[in-house]
Amino acid sequence: MAEHEDPNARHNEKMAKKKAARDKIMATKTGEKGLIVVHTGKGKGKSTAAFGMIFRCIAHGMRCAVVQFIKGGMDTGERRLIEERFSDLCTFETMGEGFTWETQDRERDVANARAAWERAKELILDPEVKMVLLDELNIALRYDYIPVGEIVDFLKNEKPEMTHVVITGRNAKDELLEIADLATEMTMLAHPFRAGVKAQQGVEF
Amino acid sequence: MAEHEDPNARHNEKMAKKKAARDKIMATKTGEKGLIVVHTGKGKGKSTAAFGMIFRCIAHGMRCAVVQFIKGGMDTGERRLIEERFSDLCTFETMGEGFTWETQDRERDVANARAAWERAKELILDPEVKMVLLDELNIALRYDYIPVGEIVDFLKNEKPEMTHVVITGRNAKDELLEIADLATEMTMLAHPFRAGVKAQQGVEF
Repeated sequence: MAEHEDPNARHNEKMAKKKAARDKIMATKTGEKGLIVVHTGKGKGKSTAAFGMIFRCIAHGMRCAVVQFIKGGMDTGERRLIEERFSDLCTFETMGEGFTWETQDRERDVANARAAWERAKELILDPEVKMVLLDELNIALRYDYIPVGEIVDFLKNEKPEMTHVVITGRNAKDELLEIADLATEMTMLAHPFRAGVKAQQGVEF
Repeated sequence: MAEHEDPNARHNEKMAKKKAARDKIMATKTGEKGLIVVHTGKGKGKSTAAFGMIFRCIAHGMRCAVVQFIKGGMDTGERRLIEERFSDLCTFETMGEGFTWETQDRERDVANARAAWERAKELILDPEVKMVLLDELNIALRYDYIPVGEIVDFLKNEKPEMTHVVITGRNAKDELLEIADLATEMTMLAHPFRAGVKAQQGVEF
């Protein structure tokens, strides 16, 4: 077989071109800045991926913090692991009392959301803290427990330039998506609840 | 104002209905089984969310394992953290040598993918191991380094019933999505590369 017909050679040539194109693009990406990251959508993985980013910071020895706006977005197992093993690197605050349909008390939800946001601002402004996860903030915004304009103003004007802020929750507001540097929508393609399987340890909590 | 006009009362009543509907649905979800979970799509968070699930297992003291089919899907920081702090609970195997466009050697990629899959099968069959993450397997399948039919047959017929298998990588094959219990597509809504920002520690590696 002539060399130009060898499928391996063809594949390798294609990959060499791909690498050259990629290297060229990457060479133009030289800036660093603190990012506003949003995970939204109805699918799984919004809080889990954010939690993965917090562990990535911990792996690099970077100071970070988690503020849970609604209890139950992240698992108590995750909180326990952080508090028992990494409390020197990661501050963990649970301000909410459960999903809104569990509390059925709007005034209490508003007060909890306000307290969580005030604590979140302190952590974002702390120059030692490099990443702050605002878990399930989108739910508090959706029900207008906190005005989205207040959050957007703070992130645009007061967030330290190099600090990363990660925001999770379905139904992210457009105003927030507009200022996000990195926004990902998680969409459900298949779900075990359809087949009568309950939430299981390690997978969903 | 009459009580039925109080916006808090209206909100609380709506939430009470939501909770009743949710509780009714959840009561029907009683089964447990090992799930086949797929994270795909062009967006961020596929490996990060899977890594978050591995940490969730670790938090619960469940034995688990990671097999990296392509080096670079998960960060070396993540590997180091697991190996230094949690090697008693999590086995970490990196079989690939980098993204395919870095190696430019199809035969070597095929041999690496085959070795990774053989190791993955051992780990999935190990009754002590409750979750196995096959990181970037979809890339190996996309380039037909391993026939997808072989993977599907094994997961359908030989995977222990209670073991969870998590598969990541863009361009998941339809044959794999068909057998997934939980499949999530991550879609990019905004990305900092557009603004000339490079990949940063803690966010992307």
